[in-house]
Amino acid sequence: MAHFSLHYNSQLIFLCRLDQLTVDSGVHEPEDYNAMTEPCQLSATEMVLRLKAGDLTPQMIAVSCINRITNRDDDVRAWAHFDRGQISATVKSLPPGPLFGIPVGVKDIIETNNMPTEYGSKIYAGHQPDADASCVASIKAGGGIVMGKTVTTEFAWRHANQTRNPHNPRHTPGGSSSGSAAAVADFQVALALGTQTAGSVIRPAAFCGVVGFKPTYGRYPIEGVKQLSPSLDTVGLFARSVSDIALFDTALTGVRHELVSGPPKLAVFVPFSDRLEEAGAKAIEDAARRLSAAGAIVTEVQFESTFDDIAAAHETIMIGEIGRALYYELENFPDSLDDYYRDNIARGASITEGEITDARTAVAMARKSVTSLFENTDLILTPPASGPAPEGLEFTGDPLFNKIWTALGWPCLALPTTKHMNSLPLGIQMVSPQSEISAFLANAAWVEMTLNQ
Amino acid sequence: MAHFSLHYNSQLIFLCRLDQLTVDSGVHEPEDYNAMTEPCQLSATEMVLRLKAGDLTPQMIAVSCINRITNRDDDVRAWAHFDRGQISATVKSLPPGPLFGIPVGVKDIIETNNMPTEYGSKIYAGHQPDADASCVASIKAGGGIVMGKTVTTEFAWRHANQTRNPHNPRHTPGGSSSGSAAAVADFQVALALGTQTAGSVIRPAAFCGVVGFKPTYGRYPIEGVKQLSPSLDTVGLFARSVSDIALFDTALTGVRHELVSGPPKLAVFVPFSDRLEEAGAKAIEDAARRLSAAGAIVTEVQFESTFDDIAAAHETIMIGEIGRALYYELENFPDSLDDYYRDNIARGASITEGEITDARTAVAMARKSVTSLFENTDLILTPPASGPAPEGLEFTGDPLFNKIWTALGWPCLALPTTKHMNSLPLGIQMVSPQSEISAFLANAAWVEMTLNQ
Repeated sequence: MAHFSLHYNSQLIFLCRLDQLTVDSGVHEPEDYNAMTEPCQLSATEMVLRLKAGDLTPQMIAVSCINRITNRDDDVRAWAHFDRGQISATVKSLPPGPLFGIPVGVKDIIETNNMPTEYGSKIYAGHQPDADASCVASIKAGGGIVMGKTVTTEFAWRHANQTRNPHNPRHTPGGSSSGSAAAVADFQVALALGTQTAGSVIRPAAFCGVVGFKPTYGRYPIEGVKQLSPSLDTVGLFARSVSDIALFDTALTGVRHELVSGPPKLAVFVPFSDRLEEAGAKAIEDAARRLSAAGAIVTEVQFESTFDDIAAAHETIMIGEIGRALYYELENFPDSLDDYYRDNIARGASITEGEITDARTAVAMARKSVTSLFENTDLILTPPASGPAPEGLEFTGDPLFNKIWTALGWPCLALPTTKHMNSLPLGIQMVSPQSEISAFLANAAWVEMTLNQ
Repeated sequence: MAHFSLHYNSQLIFLCRLDQLTVDSGVHEPEDYNAMTEPCQLSATEMVLRLKAGDLTPQMIAVSCINRITNRDDDVRAWAHFDRGQISATVKSLPPGPLFGIPVGVKDIIETNNMPTEYGSKIYAGHQPDADASCVASIKAGGGIVMGKTVTTEFAWRHANQTRNPHNPRHTPGGSSSGSAAAVADFQVALALGTQTAGSVIRPAAFCGVVGFKPTYGRYPIEGVKQLSPSLDTVGLFARSVSDIALFDTALTGVRHELVSGPPKLAVFVPFSDRLEEAGAKAIEDAARRLSAAGAIVTEVQFESTFDDIAAAHETIMIGEIGRALYYELENFPDSLDDYYRDNIARGASITEGEITDARTAVAMARKSVTSLFENTDLILTPPASGPAPEGLEFTGDPLFNKIWTALGWPCLALPTTKHMNSLPLGIQMVSPQSEISAFLANAAWVEMTLNQ
């Protein structure tokens, strides 16, 4: 490992290639974690290379991650279930596969047959499913080490649980995939599963400074994931580089990716500017300028009121479907839900099927006009959130900048690009009007490489 | 009850109104059940009226159904879980609601918090979910009596389980909602839940001679239903009349229906004629002639090759999604699956996301051209199956006549209209290119009333 003593900096390099390693930019890392030699600090792609080379074993990686979690858990609190004995036993009999020896966190809205799945709700304290969700089965069959269950907000909806932003424990990590984003950001796992119904992958990825990927609606099986709003719920991924996202995607779909791309055609698109903070706007401007300088064709697309319609339709669909998906809990455990949940589940249940259908139709019509807006675009460059992670742990942030894309079903990727004051990450969101994921990831990798240079 | 001594005939009248009762047509009923005075023989709508009038109590209805099940279970074998003590306890504390006192069967692919849910698979023997599916929660909250779990084929897919056609035990009841269709046909419950991914509601309804309703895709919450192919899986209903379907729909959605309609515009459409039996074709012709005579505007729409494309795309989507939904079971319990299941789950898992997306796009494009074919149509009149229930219990029949509509997501209703030899029911399927369910059910009720006159 002599060639592998490095300054790692989570917002500037994403450890795609050893020859791209750069020096510390001076901003704070979680726990001053700059001079790293531990396996847990490696990207998944790098772990794969070193496992193949025989420099590392799954045991070494698991122990390193277990130690990292143990040292950091009081501060970050990313785990709903974590049992080191169970991990040690698992590591002894991993099957070969694309994720062999890679530690993965699984959001606790996703069912596991050997770990409790509580959906972030006290109603389900100790709940033990009999089967793994299909995406978990793929991770296990692919040799991944399921390290435990990461904290979700209650039912992957609004109520924050205990997780803190690893960059600054007074700030939210975002949600609903709070624990997955925080655990990946804090080097506790290399990869993690999340879900997004409004902004539950992209926003926490942005707040925690990791790469978050919400694919095209339906790309990964949703089987075994507790429903919130089934026509929106999408399984997504967290990692510390685009190439790690590609590796994870390959493990889940069997599709191999070549992350080779020339400069893409970018459309800068800044919606809802009255709800966008100055720092968030500046991160987009800076990225666009640098990408343009590197050869990307950058155009600007103006906001149209169609996006207001999409946001409104998303709200109707989501609340309406929540009224159906959580109806059992409302009927049987009203005292275990607070006023907001009770009121809004009941409100959703009273939204008629006709109103939900009308909202779905509105989205379908909006999709056509929005598609024509971005006709000649490879990547839309747009804010992943209104700004850096807000202070406080109660509110996980505004999903407005995400839910329009979730409603459209388009693939989205959050990429950290810089840091704000208080060590908080800032970044960009890339969205594609096309659903061809290999090309999307290749373009995103070009952006990542360009901005990290 | 003096005014309520009747000859009930399951294929000619469906007990919408007491003044429409007719005499026995001479064909065989299950168990020669023509001179009926038992509460279990009433339609759900009639039960509601008599409960309100104080002529019946939920206890009386439950006891009658329990007796019917007990007497008939050796022959029909509709139940995966049936516990009379549990039912008796439940009946004591039913909440008020639209289904107050109505006995309902729940297909064993749908989760229940107080009854095992085995999905028709030995892998899940004794499996006890912690929560009710949302649709079950609605039935319970609406005062319905969940009588037990009805037999499903293995994972609501191909393998038949033990249920027999109540009209002739040597014949299949159809599937996958075998037990729900058979139990309703045999007067063991008034209503039952099923699911349809290809033809799993409409076909068994037709084979068993009851009304089956597969609504617009997404109308009822799919939360808590074991996934088979999530972009196709649809919760559906069984009853013995269209008005009972309307009552059940109201309980699940809160939408009230007025089943008042003039003669609808009908399009007779007979696809896949090389796979349609003569008796099945004749049932459509007869119905069309009688409906035309009663004032319906009847046109004929020719088959186009678009429907072959839809059927092929359905196959790709369904097998591809099964490869994802049942991946956990394939990986972990291959020895509990037979060759067909193992081979086809593996085949589905190897269908790429791109191929599935292409198939979904093909359906979306076909939907447009098919919609224009039926532009001026209220109801499509089309076969519910290739003919009457085939002999034998292994094969539940060909879903070809159903899966094209399931893929399109359009509402479908099976209506029994006549009987074939060996006491086997025959009927029609009505499909609507519109998704407005109140109008659809009103038109279907007009057809039912007209054909029962």
